[in-house]
Amino acid sequence: MLISGDKYVERLSGYEREIYVRGEKVEDFTNHPNIKPVVKSIALTYELAGKKDEYSPYSKLVDDKVNRLNYVNENAEDLIARYDFQRELSMRLGTCNYRCTGCDAINSLYPATKEMDERLGTDYHKRFLELLKEIQRKDYACTAALTDTKGDRSKRPKEAKDMYVHVVEKREDGIVVSGAKIHQSGAFAADINFVLPTQTFKEGEEEFAIAFAVKPEDEGVKYILQNTGYQAKFREGGEFEIGNPYGDRITCTVIFDNVFIPWERVFVFEDLKATRNLLTNFAISHRCVGASCKAGFIDSMTGAASLMLKVNGLDRVPVLRQKIGEMVGVSEAAHAIAVGSATKGFESYGTWLPNMLMANSGKVIGVEGFNKVIMNLAEIAGGIPVTAPSEFDLKSEEVGKYVEKYLVANPEFSAEERMKVIKFVEFWITSSHLLGAVHGGGSPAAAVVFLQILADMKEREEAVRDIIGLKR
Amino acid sequence: MLISGDKYVERLSGYEREIYVRGEKVEDFTNHPNIKPVVKSIALTYELAGKKDEYSPYSKLVDDKVNRLNYVNENAEDLIARYDFQRELSMRLGTCNYRCTGCDAINSLYPATKEMDERLGTDYHKRFLELLKEIQRKDYACTAALTDTKGDRSKRPKEAKDMYVHVVEKREDGIVVSGAKIHQSGAFAADINFVLPTQTFKEGEEEFAIAFAVKPEDEGVKYILQNTGYQAKFREGGEFEIGNPYGDRITCTVIFDNVFIPWERVFVFEDLKATRNLLTNFAISHRCVGASCKAGFIDSMTGAASLMLKVNGLDRVPVLRQKIGEMVGVSEAAHAIAVGSATKGFESYGTWLPNMLMANSGKVIGVEGFNKVIMNLAEIAGGIPVTAPSEFDLKSEEVGKYVEKYLVANPEFSAEERMKVIKFVEFWITSSHLLGAVHGGGSPAAAVVFLQILADMKEREEAVRDIIGLKR
Amino acid sequence: MLISGDKYVERLSGYEREIYVRGEKVEDFTNHPNIKPVVKSIALTYELAGKKDEYSPYSKLVDDKVNRLNYVNENAEDLIARYDFQRELSMRLGTCNYRCTGCDAINSLYPATKEMDERLGTDYHKRFLELLKEIQRKDYACTAALTDTKGDRSKRPKEAKDMYVHVVEKREDGIVVSGAKIHQSGAFAADINFVLPTQTFKEGEEEFAIAFAVKPEDEGVKYILQNTGYQAKFREGGEFEIGNPYGDRITCTVIFDNVFIPWERVFVFEDLKATRNLLTNFAISHRCVGASCKAGFIDSMTGAASLMLKVNGLDRVPVLRQKIGEMVGVSEAAHAIAVGSATKGFESYGTWLPNMLMANSGKVIGVEGFNKVIMNLAEIAGGIPVTAPSEFDLKSEEVGKYVEKYLVANPEFSAEERMKVIKFVEFWITSSHLLGAVHGGGSPAAAVVFLQILADMKEREEAVRDIIGLKR
Amino acid sequence: MLISGDKYVERLSGYEREIYVRGEKVEDFTNHPNIKPVVKSIALTYELAGKKDEYSPYSKLVDDKVNRLNYVNENAEDLIARYDFQRELSMRLGTCNYRCTGCDAINSLYPATKEMDERLGTDYHKRFLELLKEIQRKDYACTAALTDTKGDRSKRPKEAKDMYVHVVEKREDGIVVSGAKIHQSGAFAADINFVLPTQTFKEGEEEFAIAFAVKPEDEGVKYILQNTGYQAKFREGGEFEIGNPYGDRITCTVIFDNVFIPWERVFVFEDLKATRNLLTNFAISHRCVGASCKAGFIDSMTGAASLMLKVNGLDRVPVLRQKIGEMVGVSEAAHAIAVGSATKGFESYGTWLPNMLMANSGKVIGVEGFNKVIMNLAEIAGGIPVTAPSEFDLKSEEVGKYVEKYLVANPEFSAEERMKVIKFVEFWITSSHLLGAVHGGGSPAAAVVFLQILADMKEREEAVRDIIGLKR
Repeated sequence: MLISGDKYVERLSGYEREIYVRGEKVEDFTNHPNIKPVVKSIALTYELAGKKDEYSPYSKLVDDKVNRLNYVNENAEDLIARYDFQRELSMRLGTCNYRCTGCDAINSLYPATKEMDERLGTDYHKRFLELLKEIQRKDYACTAALTDTKGDRSKRPKEAKDMYVHVVEKREDGIVVSGAKIHQSGAFAADINFVLPTQTFKEGEEEFAIAFAVKPEDEGVKYILQNTGYQAKFREGGEFEIGNPYGDRITCTVIFDNVFIPWERVFVFEDLKATRNLLTNFAISHRCVGASCKAGFIDSMTGAASLMLKVNGLDRVPVLRQKIGEMVGVSEAAHAIAVGSATKGFESYGTWLPNMLMANSGKVIGVEGFNKVIMNLAEIAGGIPVTAPSEFDLKSEEVGKYVEKYLVANPEFSAEERMKVIKFVEFWITSSHLLGAVHGGGSPAAAVVFLQILADMKEREEAVRDIIGLKR
Repeated sequence: MLISGDKYVERLSGYEREIYVRGEKVEDFTNHPNIKPVVKSIALTYELAGKKDEYSPYSKLVDDKVNRLNYVNENAEDLIARYDFQRELSMRLGTCNYRCTGCDAINSLYPATKEMDERLGTDYHKRFLELLKEIQRKDYACTAALTDTKGDRSKRPKEAKDMYVHVVEKREDGIVVSGAKIHQSGAFAADINFVLPTQTFKEGEEEFAIAFAVKPEDEGVKYILQNTGYQAKFREGGEFEIGNPYGDRITCTVIFDNVFIPWERVFVFEDLKATRNLLTNFAISHRCVGASCKAGFIDSMTGAASLMLKVNGLDRVPVLRQKIGEMVGVSEAAHAIAVGSATKGFESYGTWLPNMLMANSGKVIGVEGFNKVIMNLAEIAGGIPVTAPSEFDLKSEEVGKYVEKYLVANPEFSAEERMKVIKFVEFWITSSHLLGAVHGGGSPAAAVVFLQILADMKEREEAVRDIIGLKR
Repeated sequence: MLISGDKYVERLSGYEREIYVRGEKVEDFTNHPNIKPVVKSIALTYELAGKKDEYSPYSKLVDDKVNRLNYVNENAEDLIARYDFQRELSMRLGTCNYRCTGCDAINSLYPATKEMDERLGTDYHKRFLELLKEIQRKDYACTAALTDTKGDRSKRPKEAKDMYVHVVEKREDGIVVSGAKIHQSGAFAADINFVLPTQTFKEGEEEFAIAFAVKPEDEGVKYILQNTGYQAKFREGGEFEIGNPYGDRITCTVIFDNVFIPWERVFVFEDLKATRNLLTNFAISHRCVGASCKAGFIDSMTGAASLMLKVNGLDRVPVLRQKIGEMVGVSEAAHAIAVGSATKGFESYGTWLPNMLMANSGKVIGVEGFNKVIMNLAEIAGGIPVTAPSEFDLKSEEVGKYVEKYLVANPEFSAEERMKVIKFVEFWITSSHLLGAVHGGGSPAAAVVFLQILADMKEREEAVRDIIGLKR
Repeated sequence: MLISGDKYVERLSGYEREIYVRGEKVEDFTNHPNIKPVVKSIALTYELAGKKDEYSPYSKLVDDKVNRLNYVNENAEDLIARYDFQRELSMRLGTCNYRCTGCDAINSLYPATKEMDERLGTDYHKRFLELLKEIQRKDYACTAALTDTKGDRSKRPKEAKDMYVHVVEKREDGIVVSGAKIHQSGAFAADINFVLPTQTFKEGEEEFAIAFAVKPEDEGVKYILQNTGYQAKFREGGEFEIGNPYGDRITCTVIFDNVFIPWERVFVFEDLKATRNLLTNFAISHRCVGASCKAGFIDSMTGAASLMLKVNGLDRVPVLRQKIGEMVGVSEAAHAIAVGSATKGFESYGTWLPNMLMANSGKVIGVEGFNKVIMNLAEIAGGIPVTAPSEFDLKSEEVGKYVEKYLVANPEFSAEERMKVIKFVEFWITSSHLLGAVHGGGSPAAAVVFLQILADMKEREEAVRDIIGLKR
C-alpha cells in the first residue's frame, strides 16, 4: 500500500519514543525543530513514490503497489528504478531521505535468510517475509543500524563485549539485547530499525552474529541526537535562515538497554556465514546506491550553483560556466556507475544485487567527485555564503534597509531572493554532507581494499603474459 | 561472415597502397616494422570475435553472423556487448584495435542517412546499406577520419578551403575531393575509411557538409605515418625490447589528392542537418566507447602493475597493493559508466545510441582516471622502466652475464622474465597513449562544454527553487 | 609599545559601537557570545608578541618595540618573522587572528603614499606616518576593508555608485563617505579599520580611487555580523560543545552611512596610480601571508588528526599515519613558499614586499593543499565528528552514563576527552574555513590570471627557441 | 678554475671507458648519438657557470672561482644560488644537467666525513678535501651513484651480498669492490663518480657502510645504457626530429667488477653513523634541489606550451591561457619551496643544508605539480605531438609538399617551425621525465614517511590541547 506523507506523519505522532536532544528528553518529537526536518524529508519519500510507476512497483508478496524503498529487487530494471528514485529524492531534498539503509537491509536480509534456511533447514526467511509483508502493507519507513561503538580496537569482540550489540539473555519468546549503534541517520523517525552486525566474525564469536528488527518504541531503545551547528540554527528558527528546510543529515546514537526482541523479529542468530552474506550484500547495495544519492546531491548543488551565478549576475562568465559543466559531469558519471552496476549485477537467492566491483568503484569515484563539486561550488559562490548577514538583519527595522540595498547584485533578484540562494549554498558547504560522503557506506579506503581483493587479477595478468610472451 | 585474422592479413597483402614512413614510400607494407603491429592488432579483432556470441551478432541485413564492430546496434544489450568486446580487446592488445571509429561511423551514418532520406526523399540510406552489406559480408575492417587540418583558426572554412576536405569537382558518376585528415589511427591497414566532416557548418558552408567512404587503394589517397620514439624502436627490432608487440597506437595523416569518389560511396552531400546529426552521434558513440577502451587499457596496466610487484618481490607491500585497488576502481568505474550510458541510451532511426550526458561524463572521468592510473603504475614500477638495459645487453656476450645477475629481484623470475615486464611498463608510461587518452574523441574541455550545454539545468534549478521557496 | 591582551580587551570595552547580530543591536559587545571569541583571538596576538623578539621588532618610528603586525617590513628577515608569527598564531588559535589585513594595509599604504608624494609633491605619506605612530604607540589592532558590494556587475562604478564606497561630500576638514564593505573579518573588534578600494579604476573614475581609515566608533559606521551555524552554537553556549573557543572566523558587513573622515585619515584621494600600487602591494602581501596562515591552520588540523588517531586507538594504522605525513607536507610546503617569496622579494619605497609570482603561487597551492588536508582529516576522523552526541548529553542525568560508556575508544582517554577532540575536528570540517581558504585574498582564478600575466613568458619561450633552433 | 664547455668535451674525449649500448661496446663515446646529447648537456653547465657571479663562487679551498656545482655551501645564499643555477640549467636544457648528484655528494660527504673524524679521530675528511681540491681545480664534472640492485627484497644485505656494492678484498693500498648501481644519470660522461650506500645499515652490516669515488676509466667499471624509444630515435638521427638535442635523461647501470679503489678515494669505511648522516644529507639535498630542477623543467614546458599556442593560432583562447597561468604557478611554487628550505636550513659541520621538512615537502608537491603540468601541456598541445609526420616527411620529395601545406596553422609560422615546436612537446610528453620526476631522489611515498616521522607532532598536538583544554 502507498500511504501519503501526511499519513506517515500522523502515524508517527502517535508513537511514544525516548529521544534526547542536548541532554534533554524531547516531548512531541515530530514537532521538535531538529526532528521535524527529518520527518519532512521522509514524508517526501511517500509523496514522490506516487509520481512514477517505477517508484511504486507491484509486490506479489502483498498483491499491491508498494514504495520502491520497501521492495525486493528482482532484476536490473528494479535496481535502476531504485537508483533513479533515490537520485531524484536527493535532488529534491538536498539532504538524506533516511530510508535507503532500510531498503538495503531488506535486500540483504532476503537472500541471506533464504540461503541460511536452505543450508540449515531453519525458518528465518519465513519470519523475515512476515515482517516484510507488514512493512509493505503498512508502508512503513525502515532504517538499518550497523556501526557498533567497538571501544578499544585492540580487543576482539569477546573482550569488549559491551561495545558490541550482543545478547544479554536468551528466552523462549525471544532475546534480550544490549549495546549501542552510532552514526544512525533518522532512525528515530522510522517505523522499523533493522539491526545488523557491524562486521563479520570468526569462529567462536557466534554470539555477535545476529540480526533483528526493533520498533523505535520498544522499551529500552533510546536515541541521542547529533548536535552540529546546523541543529542550533534550526532551534533558533527562521524562515530561510536555515538554508535547507529539510535540514542537515540528522544522525543519532541508538542505545539498546536490555531491549527484548521476540523471535519473530530475529533473522540471523549466531550464524557466521549468513552474517558474512548479509554484510557483503549490504555493503555493495549501500555503496552503489550512494553513487546515485551523491548524483542527486550534486544535481542540487549544480542547480544552486547555476542560480548563484544568476543572482550574482555572473552567469555569462565562461570559466564559471565551465565549472558547472564539470559538476554535471560528476553527477552523470556517478549515476551512470550505479546504473552500470545494476545492469552488470547478479541474482542471489531471488534478489538482484549490483556488480560488486562496480559498486565499490562508485564509492571511490563518488567521494572524489563530491569533493570536486564542493570545491567548484565554493569557487562559483564566492565568499558570501559564510559572510552574509542573516534573514533577521534583512527584516530588522534598524539595518534592514542596508541589507536590502547592498545585498542586491543582479537587479532581477531582490535581496531576499539572493539571500535564499546564499543560505542554501552555505548549507551545502558547511553542513555535514562532505564528511557524510566520505564515510557513508564505509570509508573509501575500505572500498579500495575490497576492489583489490575482489578483482580478477589473474585474468589481467594472463592478458599481459600473453602479450609479452611470459609463460607460467 | 566472420573471417579469420589470417584471412584479413592475406587480403590486406593483396592491396597496393601509398604509405610513407620517414619520408619514404613503403614496399610490402604489411611486413613493415611500423605497420605490422597494427595489422597484428586488427587481426586479433577477427580472432576474438569468435570467442563469444555477443562478439559476433546475427545481422538480418546479410542473414549471417558479423563482427560486433560492423554491426548496427539496435538496443542497449547490443551496445553493452560492444563495450565488453572493446574492453577485452584493449586489455588483450594493450593498444588500439583501430576499428572502433569504423563502428562509430556505421552507427552514426545509419540513423543520419535515414533521417535525411525521410526528410528529403533522397536515397542515401540505401546507398549506405549497400556498402554496409558488403562490409558485413566480406568482414571488412573499417575506420573513420574526421579531423581536418583547419589551418588558420581565425578563418572560416570558405576562406581556408584547402585545409578542409572539400569537393574539387562534381561529376555525373561521383565527386572529386581534396584535403587532408590528421590523427588517423591505423587507417592504412583498414579495408574502408569513412570520411566525415570535422565539425558542423553554418548556412552557406554546405559544400563542406559531406560524408563518404574511400578505399585505401583509391588513387590519390596517401598515408604519412607518425614517428614517435617507439616507431624507431620497432624499426630496430628485437624480441621483447619493444615492450608491446602490438605496438604503440600508430596514426597517420591521410592526404586526399584529387580522389574520385563514386556516388554510391557518398552518404551525405551538402546537408547541414545530417552533418550535425552525424557528428553528434559520432561524438557520443566514440566518447562512450572510449570509457570502455580505457577500462581495458587500465586492466592491462593493472595486470602489468601486479606482475611488476611480483617480479620486483614487492607484492606484499600494503601501500603498493592499495594502489592496485585504486587502479581496479578506475577501470570498473569507466566501464560502468559506458554500460550505464548504454542502459540509459536512446533509439534514433533504428540505432541505439548511448545517453548523451553520461557518454560525455565518461570522457571527463576517463581522462582523470587514466592519468591517475599512469601515476599509480609509475609509483609501483619504480624508476627501472626507463633506466633498464636492453634485451641486446642481456643477450650480449660481453655484458649479458651482468644483466642476468643484477636484473633479478624476486628469485622466482629470471632476468629475462623481469625485463619483459619492465619493457611492457616502459611502453605504457612513455608511449603516446596518455596524450591519446586526453585528446581521443575530442578534448576533455569539449566534453565539459557539451555537458554544460546539454544538461537540464532548469530541472536542477527548479528543484532548488522548490526547496528554498524561490518563486519564478 | 606592547600592551597585554587584557589591556586590549579593557580598551575595547570602553568603546561605543554599532554592532548588529541577528537583526538586533548588541549591548556590551565584548561579552557577546559571537564577538567574545574574536576578542579572545585578537588578545592572543598581544600575548604571543612577547614570546619572541622576532614577534616584537624595534620601530625607529616610535623608538620602541611594537607588535610585528603593526610594523613596516624593511627586509626579507622582517617578512619571514611576520610569516613565522602568523603561522604560529594560526596554529595556536585554530582560527583567524583578524589583524593580518591591518598589517597588509600598513605595508601597502607605506610605499604607495610615499610614491604618490614623490610624484605629486603631496603629504599623504606624512599623514599616514602620523597615524602609524599612533598605532604603534598605542598598540592598536588594525584591520583593512576592501570588498565593495559592487551590485550589478554589468555596470561600471559610476553607474552603480552607491554599491562602491564613495565620497558624498568633500569638506574643508575632511570627506563624507557612504557605501558598504563585505567579508570583513573581525573589523568590529579592532581599533582601526583601513578602508581601501576594491579594485583599480580607469580614467574618469578617480572619485572612487580613495583610501582612508575609520575608527569603529565613528558616527555612521555599522557592523552587521555573519550568521552561520557556528554562531548559533556559540549563542547556546557550553564548555567544549563549540569545538574551538576562539570561534569560527567571524566576518561582518560594514555600513558607512555618511561617515565623516578628517583629512588626516585620508591617504589616497582620487589618484589612480596610487590605487593600483596599493592594491598590487596588498594583494601579494595578503596572498603570501595566507600561505603561512594556512600552514598554521594545517598544523592545527594535523595536531587534531594525530590526537584523533590516539583517542580512537588507531594511531598505529600505517595508511592513516601516511595521511598525517601528507598533511605535514602541505603545511611545510605552504610555509616554505611564503619564506621563499620573502627571500626573493623586493623593496618598494622603504617596504620589503614578497616576490609577486611566488606570492600568487602560494595562493593557488594553498587552496589545493587546504582541500587535500580537509579530506585527509575527514578520512582520519571517521564519521563521528558530525554524528556524536553533545556535551549536554554527556552531562545529562538521563543519558550521560551511556555516552560516558559508549564514547570511549582508546581506554587511556575518557569520553569527555575524546569528545573534546571530536568537537574540535567537527569545527575544522564544518566551519567556514574551507570557503575562507578558497576566497580569502581573492579567488584562486584571480591568482592564476595574475600568474599568467606577470610571468616572464618571453624568457621561457626564448629558452625553448634556443633549444629547438627556432629563430625569431 | 672554470674551464669552457669545449675543454670539458676535449678532456672527456681523451678517456678510455667501457660503455655499452644495445649490447655493444661503444667506440669514440663522446660522439655516439646516445652519449653526445649528455655531453652537450654537461658542457652547458660549464658555459652557463660564467654567466653570473652566483654561478661561480670563490672557493677558499683552491683560492679560485669554481663551478657552483662543485662548491661546498656555507650559508643560505649559497644554497639559493645553487637552486637558481639549477633551475636555469633545467630551463635551458629541457633535460638533466647530470651534475646535481655530484654536488649533493660533495655537500653530504663534507659534513659526514668531518663528523666522523671528530668522533673517531680518523682522517677521512682530509682525504675528501684532497679530492675536492682536485675537482675544483680541474673543474671536474661529478655524479653520485646510490641505488644498489638489492635483488631479493626479503633478504638482508648479508644474504644478498652480491646485490650490494661491497668490499671483495681489503688491501694495504686500498679496497677492491664489486656490485652494481642502477638508475645512474650520465655517470659515463663525468670525471668522477661518487659511490654511496643505497640505504642505512644495522649493526653487523658494517661491511656495506662504505663510500668512495671511482674514475670512470678505472678498470672493471662498465656502463650499460638505458634504451628507451628516444635512444632509438637519436640513433636514426635528424635535425629536429629528436625534439630536444640535449636528449632524454640518459641513465645507465654501472657495473663494478673487482674495481680497485685506493684509500685516498675511500671516504667512509664500515661506519654506520657516518653512513646515516651521509644519506640523510644526500636525501634532503637531492630532494630539495629536485624542486628547483622541476621548476626549470616546468619553465621549459611553459615556454613550449606558450609557443605551441602561437604556432597553433590559439594563443587568445582564455581557457588555454589559464592553463599557462597554472603551469607558472607550479614552477614558482616549486622554486619558492626550495628557496624557503634554504632560508630555513641549518649548518652541519661547515655545510649549509636545507630544512629537512621543507625539502621533503618539495618532493611531494613537485611530483603532483609535475604531473599537473604534463597534463596541462597535453591539453594545450592537442593530439598532434604524437600523430605528426616526421622531419623526413617534410623534407621528402614525394610527400614534402603535403606536409608543408597541411602542417601550417598560424600563417606566421612555417610548417618546419611548427614541427620543431611539436617535436619538442612530444619529447616532454613521451620522454622518461615523468617517471624520473616520480622516482628521482626517492619515491613520493618515501618523502611522506620522512615527513611523518620528522615532524614535531608534539608541538602541533600541544597547540590543540591548549585550545580545547585537554590536559596531559
